[in-house]
Amino acid sequence: MAIVVQKFGGSSVGSAERIQRVARRIRETAEKGNDVAVIVSAMGDTTDDLIALAEQLTSDPPPREMDMLLSTGEQQSIALLAMALDALGCRVVSLTGWQAGYHTDGLFSKAKILSIDCCRVQEEFRKGNIVIVAGFQGLDAHGEINTLGRGGSDTSAVALAVALDADICEIFTDVDGVYTADPRMVKTARKMSEVSYDEMLEMAAMGAVVLQPRSVELAKQYQVVLHVRSSFNYSEGTIVKEDAVMNKDLEKEMIVCGVAHDTNVMKATLFGVPDRPGIAGEIFGQLAADGVNVDMIVQSGNRDERQDVSFTCGRQDRMKITRTLSGLMKTLPADSYALLDTIAKVSVVGAGMITHPGVAATMFRVLAEEGINIGMISTSEIKISCTVDEEQVNRAVLALHTAFGLDDVKSCS
Amino acid sequence: MAIVVQKFGGSSVGSAERIQRVARRIRETAEKGNDVAVIVSAMGDTTDDLIALAEQLTSDPPPREMDMLLSTGEQQSIALLAMALDALGCRVVSLTGWQAGYHTDGLFSKAKILSIDCCRVQEEFRKGNIVIVAGFQGLDAHGEINTLGRGGSDTSAVALAVALDADICEIFTDVDGVYTADPRMVKTARKMSEVSYDEMLEMAAMGAVVLQPRSVELAKQYQVVLHVRSSFNYSEGTIVKEDAVMNKDLEKEMIVCGVAHDTNVMKATLFGVPDRPGIAGEIFGQLAADGVNVDMIVQSGNRDERQDVSFTCGRQDRMKITRTLSGLMKTLPADSYALLDTIAKVSVVGAGMITHPGVAATMFRVLAEEGINIGMISTSEIKISCTVDEEQVNRAVLALHTAFGLDDVKSCS
Repeated sequence: MAIVVQKFGGSSVGSAERIQRVARRIRETAEKGNDVAVIVSAMGDTTDDLIALAEQLTSDPPPREMDMLLSTGEQQSIALLAMALDALGCRVVSLTGWQAGYHTDGLFSKAKILSIDCCRVQEEFRKGNIVIVAGFQGLDAHGEINTLGRGGSDTSAVALAVALDADICEIFTDVDGVYTADPRMVKTARKMSEVSYDEMLEMAAMGAVVLQPRSVELAKQYQVVLHVRSSFNYSEGTIVKEDAVMNKDLEKEMIVCGVAHDTNVMKATLFGVPDRPGIAGEIFGQLAADGVNVDMIVQSGNRDERQDVSFTCGRQDRMKITRTLSGLMKTLPADSYALLDTIAKVSVVGAGMITHPGVAATMFRVLAEEGINIGMISTSEIKISCTVDEEQVNRAVLALHTAFGLDDVKSCS
Repeated sequence: MAIVVQKFGGSSVGSAERIQRVARRIRETAEKGNDVAVIVSAMGDTTDDLIALAEQLTSDPPPREMDMLLSTGEQQSIALLAMALDALGCRVVSLTGWQAGYHTDGLFSKAKILSIDCCRVQEEFRKGNIVIVAGFQGLDAHGEINTLGRGGSDTSAVALAVALDADICEIFTDVDGVYTADPRMVKTARKMSEVSYDEMLEMAAMGAVVLQPRSVELAKQYQVVLHVRSSFNYSEGTIVKEDAVMNKDLEKEMIVCGVAHDTNVMKATLFGVPDRPGIAGEIFGQLAADGVNVDMIVQSGNRDERQDVSFTCGRQDRMKITRTLSGLMKTLPADSYALLDTIAKVSVVGAGMITHPGVAATMFRVLAEEGINIGMISTSEIKISCTVDEEQVNRAVLALHTAFGLDDVKSCS
């Protein structure tokens, strides 16, 4: 008998029929004698529908009221899933985020979980109940409903697994697991049987959004074993854990475990920034304060008195960036700024590259051979990212997937 | 400066445009310097849509999970209404039932409000906020979400008016006020400018469902003055209070203030029930335990050893009644039972009839002249109800409305 946390995303509970399928799957896990806690997202398009409703009323809804509104989506799906399980003869209870003891930090629309008081969940386990918990939400110290922001249900699941000291946290999604590249783009992409937290983080941060990065960080911190798998079939998915043996099903050693890409990328550049200490802190501190999530950062580092600073971020932040950079132009001051949103990012990831320093060179050579020009470059110990023209990103991913030996020979035609 | 509680029903907030109109109306009240607390129902068909979703999953959803599901409807409308007010430049905050301090008795789907701890609402008033509160819901002693049952938002509003010691409780609805009969059926029906709690209760209990009866009882108990009015125009509606002067706009004394009817009626009869003390308690105790709301009760009271007991209730209870009566057949025992659902109820109401004993006779005569056969009869100090064939109910209402001098001469053609 184990404690199992399962998480089902919005598409897994997108209709009555799907909810019933998910219910049968949960029942199977419970019937094996496990204590089962299930985190569930809002049904299919519920969140988008609610946002559309809010947009009919105002272009600038107060974040507190958006959280009040959006948190109803999960509350509906937990109730419906509990009904479906009850109809299957299971003992079950649904709990909102606050009933399940999620304490959050009060930052509306992007709250962090501070702690989970899981007494109620454990009490329900003792009564023999399957516990269905609303993901994506918690209550702050003032009794206000907070949401964790998009994709926050993954984090809700991992946090509950930590609090319950669960044996496994299964993340059910609409894909079979984590692939060496996006299988919609790369026909020869292979499913990884295992991947480490760090690799998963790099993959997640770079567009392979099977898991929300924050949830992987939390799993790494508390060493929660994740199993990313499909809610539509019973194939084994991908295990995410510390000491993952990459591609254990293959004999040859893999240096790179996957190729990720992200087309929701734009580049911003500030020209002629004064070269004085603290200037980068000023720029990126202001961007953070304005709620812009910056990804890659490149500073030319010339010896001149003034230099150029570039960074990438998601295209949804265009409005915010324009405002922030206009302000910085005056306060820094800087000469001018430019935005470019016809780019994409391609990355190769793998713990193996720490001991194989030629990976970057190979990556640049492969792209050059394809006639693809590289924009910005950013590296970490286990990943290398480049920006390329968005028209060329498909070709870049395919070429890198082949060059790093990731193609599934069986799938090759 | 006064404390004003306003309640808007589901049709008043059925679309973005209607929510904006309601928001403007609330702002007007706040701008006069009043502290305003607003109870709001779920948008238009939200509750029905959610019930339909649940029915796709199970024919017998657990009441606890239904409450979890249905309470989201009001949570959505409070958030949206708060956004609309914020967009108008108002200071506003929305509160769920549990945030607003509604303590309920734990009876899922038909909970009663035990108390309201209105500290939070008062704190928000002190901050200068308009407070939007989710109707229809509360939290029980175990931290479970309860709903008050259909129409419970009226009761939420009156209870909050009591707790806040409000000066007025305005019930906004899709009709102009309380009429002497259903204006869709009786063209000459007149709006009453005032009506007493008791009369309103009798009207409400008999199909003129402008207000939920429980909310009127509560208003009577605490002497909360209600103003029932349209959310679509600025006409004065109907004031409900203790010392109402009926039809004060008319010179002649009115004995009957209104004619109500209800077509959601069915009759059940138990034949050959043993005539021993406590038998009625047994029958109606069991019906109450099974959740059947019984309305009229008639016992033949013959001198025989066995007698017949009839009662009326809503048609939605057909399944429950069949089960209960089948059980009682064996335990009492009784000879047989019968159900009849082609009937309707017509009632005349008026405090004046206490001093005018001829009202019942007039009513029976008028119906006889129309060739309408009377089934069951039930009387109280201020109302007389009869069941008639449902095909004849329209004719009965029109005839009684005219006979008791309620026709609006101006509207007569």
